[in-house]
Amino acid sequence: MNVIELFKKLISTKSETPDDGGLLDFITEYLEGFQAVRVDSNGVKNLFIYKTFGDGEHLCFAGHVDVVPAGEGWDTPPYEAVEKDGCIYGRGTQDMKSGVAAFVQAVKDAENFKGTLSLLLTSDEEGEATDGTIKVLEYLKEKEMLPDVCVVAEPTCEEVFGDAIKVGRRGSINGYLTLKGKQGHAAYPEKAINPIHLIAKPLANMAGVDLDDGDEHFAPSKFVVTDIRSGMQVTNVTPNELKMMFNVRNNTKTTQKEVRMFVAKQMDGLDYDLRLTQGSYPFKTDESTKLVRMIDKAIEHVTGVQPKHSTAGGTSDARFISAFGVDVIEFGVKNDTIHSVNERTTKKEVEDLYRVFTSLIAIWE
Amino acid sequence: MNVIELFKKLISTKSETPDDGGLLDFITEYLEGFQAVRVDSNGVKNLFIYKTFGDGEHLCFAGHVDVVPAGEGWDTPPYEAVEKDGCIYGRGTQDMKSGVAAFVQAVKDAENFKGTLSLLLTSDEEGEATDGTIKVLEYLKEKEMLPDVCVVAEPTCEEVFGDAIKVGRRGSINGYLTLKGKQGHAAYPEKAINPIHLIAKPLANMAGVDLDDGDEHFAPSKFVVTDIRSGMQVTNVTPNELKMMFNVRNNTKTTQKEVRMFVAKQMDGLDYDLRLTQGSYPFKTDESTKLVRMIDKAIEHVTGVQPKHSTAGGTSDARFISAFGVDVIEFGVKNDTIHSVNERTTKKEVEDLYRVFTSLIAIWE
Ligand SMILES: [Zn+2]
Ligand SMILES: [Zn+2]
Repeated sequence: MNVIELFKKLISTKSETPDDGGLLDFITEYLEGFQAVRVDSNGVKNLFIYKTFGDGEHLCFAGHVDVVPAGEGWDTPPYEAVEKDGCIYGRGTQDMKSGVAAFVQAVKDAENFKGTLSLLLTSDEEGEATDGTIKVLEYLKEKEMLPDVCVVAEPTCEEVFGDAIKVGRRGSINGYLTLKGKQGHAAYPEKAINPIHLIAKPLANMAGVDLDDGDEHFAPSKFVVTDIRSGMQVTNVTPNELKMMFNVRNNTKTTQKEVRMFVAKQMDGLDYDLRLTQGSYPFKTDESTKLVRMIDKAIEHVTGVQPKHSTAGGTSDARFISAFGVDVIEFGVKNDTIHSVNERTTKKEVEDLYRVFTSLIAIWE
Repeated sequence: MNVIELFKKLISTKSETPDDGGLLDFITEYLEGFQAVRVDSNGVKNLFIYKTFGDGEHLCFAGHVDVVPAGEGWDTPPYEAVEKDGCIYGRGTQDMKSGVAAFVQAVKDAENFKGTLSLLLTSDEEGEATDGTIKVLEYLKEKEMLPDVCVVAEPTCEEVFGDAIKVGRRGSINGYLTLKGKQGHAAYPEKAINPIHLIAKPLANMAGVDLDDGDEHFAPSKFVVTDIRSGMQVTNVTPNELKMMFNVRNNTKTTQKEVRMFVAKQMDGLDYDLRLTQGSYPFKTDESTKLVRMIDKAIEHVTGVQPKHSTAGGTSDARFISAFGVDVIEFGVKNDTIHSVNERTTKKEVEDLYRVFTSLIAIWE
């Protein structure tokens, strides 16, 4: 098989989270001569597969074989890898079976490498992600087999293939605020404590506010209110309580503690309760590291494009890999149709992604 | 019967809105020699009953024989007029069978009057009030029999009997605001239009704000937010719409138009929809009128107390009477237990209220 044949095979296998559709077994067989370890956990399928060429560095490619459900309204059957006008259609074409096909084929075709090449694959990236990549990392840490560097092949490009790698991601802090008041009759506002009135000024000082200035690569950590509700949907009674939810996509300059202090300052003197949860922590890979320099070089070599170093977007499993002290970047095809109907990528991007990974392996010293 | 016997008879007749319990028939019989007109409407019982002594002014007493449901938890049977320690207990003792007993007995006992004495009674004041007092007023207007002045015997006193009459009431304007935005992902706030963020500053400029300064008798018209809701109760999606309800208890200085202009100024540039409804209109009876001077004199004569002129509280049927161009005031017993369990009034207050009304009739010229 070449990378396109492999890609089509992956697309035409349905593997909605946390089902791997048998793909991890398939890849294990496909990578004959590699050593495979299954780290399945609570029904989630995880594969670590590697080949040691010498005692040089350990370069890992990571990704997920699961996809979000196809949903309704497709022009083509979503699990059939239909080719049309240079594109291949199907659920997972961008996110991220293109990446998986490219790195599986690249490590299979690698003939010389100074150290260890490996793949870390999960079937639970689009779900809770608690039994996926992190379980494999825990296993590798225990076995002292953590890679030196890792490339996650999530789709990262924006306008043209090669234009962006991710060198970090923001974290995500969720806030649940309850403000207490005292119920009353609308005709006697002086006898009530109206929490909607109490929140008005603090809300104006918090909604949409940047909690830091960000930096060259990170956008500022913005306070985004996602829900507010108070009242009994009547006009004659004022409520005794107000509830508000918010989210902060935080960079490395702002932590939970700072979010709590910010709210405390604005809500000073009010009777409120604040619960914070951390959906994920932010991370940033130093751009002077070998990994960033090498992937840049490989991309420029194949595409002629100099990729920008981005930290935008949601979260990916790269956050877990970074937390284990592994230098990690993300690079893959364009991401303009992920999670949509008629998800598609161009054949050329898949071939070029394979070439970039092949080139990275070749130039790694 | 004297006024207390009459009062006990009224209390021991159950008449929960819109049921009159037969009381209007009873009063018609009791006021032998008066002319009675029934203006029943959609199941609501209304009585206009009058006696013309001469061609002088027409003084009307108005009120309701209906009561709110007794509810649970009474120490005495709520429809038995139990006497204890100088008080009479029962549903409607304050609101407002004390007032009805006092004015029925006062007009019955009146021997000389220069003009016409009348009563306007309804069984639908505590309900929607759409088939009650207003129907009688429409009838009287058509017959050119509208009174010159009217005393509504709602309970008005606060600390001691005689300390307050009402010379007006605030109106009530309800507002229903919908603010449109554009749904988005919390990670990409710049691609969304978050209505919670948009409302923050306008809300701070509106919540609890006085729309006028009020005056000697009216509190300012305050913007009271009673409900706010937006969002899907999640932290990762920002909503596409926000809904808010508010209420303004307005005095005569602020109308619907001014409320609309106030909101428009604060919400300038935003895509919103505002619906306003008027629950009731404010009214104010000129304090230099004969009616106010005379009731003050009658109260001071009986109690030695100078009543203050208040406009506080919710609404009463006086708003309808005022709207027909009739000078109207409200005066009755203390109102500290209305609509509560163990509603009660003192025998002395009922007797004194009878004396005040008798005195008013006697001194009216
Ligand atoms: Zn993905
Ligand atoms: Zn009443």
